[in-house]
Amino acid sequence: MTGLSRFQLTLVICLLALLAVPAVAADPSGAATLEEDSFAPVNFVWTLICGFLVMFMQAGFAMVETGLTRAKNAVNIMMKNLADFSLGALSYWAVGFALMFGTASGITGLLVGLDGFFLLGNGYDVSTMELWFFQMVFAATAATIVSGAVAERTKFSTYLIASIAITALIYPIYGHWLWGGGWLNASEFMVGLGGGYGALDFAGSGVVHAIGGFVGLAGALMLGPRIGKYRRDGTPVAIPGHALTLAALGVFILWFGWFGFNAGSTLAATELRISIIAANTVLASAAGAITTMLITWWRYGKPDVSMTGNGVLGGLVAITAGCAWVNPTAAVFIGIVAGIIIYLGVWLLDWVLHIDDPVGAVSVHGFNGAWGLLALGIFADGTYGVYVTDGPLVTGLLYGNAGFFAAQAISMAVNFVWAFGLGLALFAALKYTVGIRVSAAEELQGLDIGEHGVSAYPNFIATEPTVDGEKV
Amino acid sequence: MTGLSRFQLTLVICLLALLAVPAVAADPSGAATLEEDSFAPVNFVWTLICGFLVMFMQAGFAMVETGLTRAKNAVNIMMKNLADFSLGALSYWAVGFALMFGTASGITGLLVGLDGFFLLGNGYDVSTMELWFFQMVFAATAATIVSGAVAERTKFSTYLIASIAITALIYPIYGHWLWGGGWLNASEFMVGLGGGYGALDFAGSGVVHAIGGFVGLAGALMLGPRIGKYRRDGTPVAIPGHALTLAALGVFILWFGWFGFNAGSTLAATELRISIIAANTVLASAAGAITTMLITWWRYGKPDVSMTGNGVLGGLVAITAGCAWVNPTAAVFIGIVAGIIIYLGVWLLDWVLHIDDPVGAVSVHGFNGAWGLLALGIFADGTYGVYVTDGPLVTGLLYGNAGFFAAQAISMAVNFVWAFGLGLALFAALKYTVGIRVSAAEELQGLDIGEHGVSAYPNFIATEPTVDGEKV
Amino acid sequence: MTGLSRFQLTLVICLLALLAVPAVAADPSGAATLEEDSFAPVNFVWTLICGFLVMFMQAGFAMVETGLTRAKNAVNIMMKNLADFSLGALSYWAVGFALMFGTASGITGLLVGLDGFFLLGNGYDVSTMELWFFQMVFAATAATIVSGAVAERTKFSTYLIASIAITALIYPIYGHWLWGGGWLNASEFMVGLGGGYGALDFAGSGVVHAIGGFVGLAGALMLGPRIGKYRRDGTPVAIPGHALTLAALGVFILWFGWFGFNAGSTLAATELRISIIAANTVLASAAGAITTMLITWWRYGKPDVSMTGNGVLGGLVAITAGCAWVNPTAAVFIGIVAGIIIYLGVWLLDWVLHIDDPVGAVSVHGFNGAWGLLALGIFADGTYGVYVTDGPLVTGLLYGNAGFFAAQAISMAVNFVWAFGLGLALFAALKYTVGIRVSAAEELQGLDIGEHGVSAYPNFIATEPTVDGEKV
Repeated sequence: MTGLSRFQLTLVICLLALLAVPAVAADPSGAATLEEDSFAPVNFVWTLICGFLVMFMQAGFAMVETGLTRAKNAVNIMMKNLADFSLGALSYWAVGFALMFGTASGITGLLVGLDGFFLLGNGYDVSTMELWFFQMVFAATAATIVSGAVAERTKFSTYLIASIAITALIYPIYGHWLWGGGWLNASEFMVGLGGGYGALDFAGSGVVHAIGGFVGLAGALMLGPRIGKYRRDGTPVAIPGHALTLAALGVFILWFGWFGFNAGSTLAATELRISIIAANTVLASAAGAITTMLITWWRYGKPDVSMTGNGVLGGLVAITAGCAWVNPTAAVFIGIVAGIIIYLGVWLLDWVLHIDDPVGAVSVHGFNGAWGLLALGIFADGTYGVYVTDGPLVTGLLYGNAGFFAAQAISMAVNFVWAFGLGLALFAALKYTVGIRVSAAEELQGLDIGEHGVSAYPNFIATEPTVDGEKV
Repeated sequence: MTGLSRFQLTLVICLLALLAVPAVAADPSGAATLEEDSFAPVNFVWTLICGFLVMFMQAGFAMVETGLTRAKNAVNIMMKNLADFSLGALSYWAVGFALMFGTASGITGLLVGLDGFFLLGNGYDVSTMELWFFQMVFAATAATIVSGAVAERTKFSTYLIASIAITALIYPIYGHWLWGGGWLNASEFMVGLGGGYGALDFAGSGVVHAIGGFVGLAGALMLGPRIGKYRRDGTPVAIPGHALTLAALGVFILWFGWFGFNAGSTLAATELRISIIAANTVLASAAGAITTMLITWWRYGKPDVSMTGNGVLGGLVAITAGCAWVNPTAAVFIGIVAGIIIYLGVWLLDWVLHIDDPVGAVSVHGFNGAWGLLALGIFADGTYGVYVTDGPLVTGLLYGNAGFFAAQAISMAVNFVWAFGLGLALFAALKYTVGIRVSAAEELQGLDIGEHGVSAYPNFIATEPTVDGEKV
Repeated sequence: MTGLSRFQLTLVICLLALLAVPAVAADPSGAATLEEDSFAPVNFVWTLICGFLVMFMQAGFAMVETGLTRAKNAVNIMMKNLADFSLGALSYWAVGFALMFGTASGITGLLVGLDGFFLLGNGYDVSTMELWFFQMVFAATAATIVSGAVAERTKFSTYLIASIAITALIYPIYGHWLWGGGWLNASEFMVGLGGGYGALDFAGSGVVHAIGGFVGLAGALMLGPRIGKYRRDGTPVAIPGHALTLAALGVFILWFGWFGFNAGSTLAATELRISIIAANTVLASAAGAITTMLITWWRYGKPDVSMTGNGVLGGLVAITAGCAWVNPTAAVFIGIVAGIIIYLGVWLLDWVLHIDDPVGAVSVHGFNGAWGLLALGIFADGTYGVYVTDGPLVTGLLYGNAGFFAAQAISMAVNFVWAFGLGLALFAALKYTVGIRVSAAEELQGLDIGEHGVSAYPNFIATEPTVDGEKV
């Protein structure tokens, strides 16, 4: 019933909006843009194909998340990933893009954008739509990160509400502060502090990953751990994933897509720095993977595949903020630290905080996202400027610019407070209204049957996993 | 024996053809083309990379089809997908491209092309080969759609013959009528009716998807339903797919590849409209997914993952014809209708027509392909012209051009008659000669053993699914 | 303990290297390069995106290798693939690139490069980094090929050492001889023999695939066959793969990535020959697939999926050397021969040499890599020149240049001696020091538990495969 009425409402909104489209828009055919700039085609090709790669990361997230969790929840995880990308696209079309890249006068404009809802106004222009497309796939990435942290116990309907809140509000507002002319990047105070450019985040260690990771942390905290995750004595149990081949496939897909994520963030192929961005991206991730692999080998006696995969992803997240401004040696160093953070982060959540993050999303995206912001403040070597515009060269702590490091630290702290704080508020509000967690019976049976009425693998005989003799 | 002789014949043909290649061809090195047009490199990069993405959709089709069917037929489905892409490439090289994009004088040229077989003549030219490559991956897509509709019961050898017939004949001839200078697009009557451009289909809602979907409908009808699909009282049984994670992966792969399918169909990056095409593509698919999800939630009580995945694909198919000529709001609307069509189409086949289409290919590609042709005729908003050439702006019913809507309706009707009619003739001819269906014993055991002598998952213990106590 | 100290060492090296980076490098921002060459953006876009596609082939190799082997070794295969790409990137950054593309004076320069270790010197330049990125993903491909040939019985730690040796030494030195100004391509003798260009290898049938395949042959020989591979009477047993859907997915991913591998090897979109390269690539692979399928149908009575997949890959490997210099008809012919080689190669290893290559890597990459080098020497048709520079047109035996065929045969022989010889030395050295093979007990239990302490599919009940009543 709810389904139907929501659906009818959408129909009506669409029809009304359709009539409101202005007859003449900026440059919907692209002819004028081409006339002005003969590099426009190559820049469009670069930005769009990189955007396609970022979209494909959704497949990677889905595979990593399902591979690292149990077969009985596999359908639920697929549904969450299909739905959050779809809702993300629609939310970002309706609301998110306007808040993030819209304009507003005076002090308001430092906080939030306020025009371009539903891409009306000047939205119907080849350049605006190019930007919208690239930014939309980023917004959906932030949402999908949360999915992993709250896996295997969240009500599907509630998850959808949280997902919309992230792409429509939490993500775009912090995004505005960094990328849309907001205060962290463009206020007089921050510009002065940073040395002419305020806080920066090239491709979104903070804007995308830390936001997603810290909202996920709040979600995992509010939900509580999965049944069986902790023994009676409080020691954590490693609940094994049901298909490590799919998890590894997911890592490779994310790795592939990340080149679009990072190098594509120039939004222009005329920025030939894209080759260095790609090289930094692969070096940091390789260093992260090998570091985590060696640590697990040393600590557990055997090299661990889930952790190594997360080492790849941690390296990728950590280089994302600084990929355009650091050199390859620094990228290797950033990746090594990222790999250490993966190990420490998982240990911290599992053993100290007792927060159950089934896929390691908080360590990968949250902690390494924060590290990425700081690393940029440390290693930016002054060989490349502020992107898109011909801004000043970006220089970090190691090259004498302590102010920029301070700006990055502020951005990192604001990121945590905003994402974790709003995440707590969001999940608390949901918890005490519609509820956020499925029943224990449903959790034990699996969310696939409970939430979706099907099993992911009906042609195979399943095992009955137990912890201390009890079904989990 | 047959295998060998066919193989020897191929060898001989190749050797003969090799000798016939002209010593001097148009521009095989590309130097002259580059000299003439400095945008040629960016246009080649765009078209080729988008073509690679379309090729990758084969992986998506394979995953969706196998994920939504049973484990005992998984190898057969992989073989069909490997073979139909390979045969498609060779058929389209030998015959299809010549029929579709070849020339012929006078009235014949409105019906079919007649030169360029085996890419001889002027084929060995960088521009011709670029077009061939992009069109070949489209032709293979049309063939592979049929595979899903006839899954789990078709003889492999017969399937190969049908597949060749589609890429060599059925697809390219209708394709010629729309894209190769044929009558639906270029005859005086249709050009007058449409307002200067005849019937259109930007990226192939009709040419690729409806053709594939309606040939598939004919195949599914001629084959009859799988054993166990209908209870004795005639009610349909949902036979569950064996790996919904792989099915969802397939949806993501198709989604990713579809950006190449739609935006790449400009064949030129200088058409900056590509950004709007990409945005329309994602908006329609997102709207389709959410619409179908909500309908299944409302009707079945729980949101259904297979249907939601098909909602994504239905939205993609429906926007394919009009993606370049409609605005984003219209794209959302087209997607919503596509999602409704998915639900109604599956209901129509399952409950009314009693035609067994294991993966929903007819609803996704056939019915939504037809809707895509009509939607273009309704929503084209006159902000963008006929592609490649500087043709007139394209305007639909909603903007006052009823003639163009009529042209689209004619194209849709012709599409159905051509594809379903030839499909029936093809499968009937095969049925009464070589046979189209495996034995009941083989179907129960699974086609993997029967047709290929192997099992897809020999290391796992399989369940024995039953319907009303009987093995299926 | 070892893990830690190695890790600490890496940290120290990085920090030292960081300080050594020159303050001013060639063109780290890319502004000067853009100023000089307005085609630089489109050439960078082409090369980088094709490089991303080559990187994604890692996912394809992982899926093919795991799909064609047993579930009990699936995690080990994932770990090998994650680790060898990561180690490959770091080795090629530290050592490999310097040996392959560095310079050295006089006769030494014909043998090996000697500068640019750790990308220091002029490495920090947008053009150098573009080349590094594209070449790095190729180096990692060579390493990963070996993984398949030695699957299901190799100690993980030993595999890592072998993998580093390949990307740091074996691959780059032969690569230098062909692509880095070394003797096979650039010595006076070879240039005279070939007709102005020495031995050639457009995208690496020899440099990448035959090197990987023949090192793999050496590894498989030194390891001996898996337990159960041969019956007591010496007849080989086909040990079935555990997930043929994943294997087929891997083939599709490799197919997709190969377009980047081949067409991207122009390193420039201004070489419009890229369209012919893409078309040749698809035609050869399609011909290889259908040929192998028909042979297995004829010989085994049923078309075989693993062999058909390897037919695709064999066709891809065989066209890789000549893709830029032959015409489409020749590509079909090269693919047909490749498909025959797949069948004969598997027969030769299984029945004659009794070498156990679980995934067919030697036939796909070794034998077809060698065939690719020869095929280029036969079919090059003189319509396209030596790449990058404006070199002379390349002509093969069929067009009258027997000298070039001789040069290619020399290159092929050197390739085999170098790769198989060093491979034997490497694996022998490892065998008699650290050991190369896991214990029989661990092999029977599976390497996932023995080497990594986890199972890939803990939620499913596994079968207990046997050969002649004994567990395998």
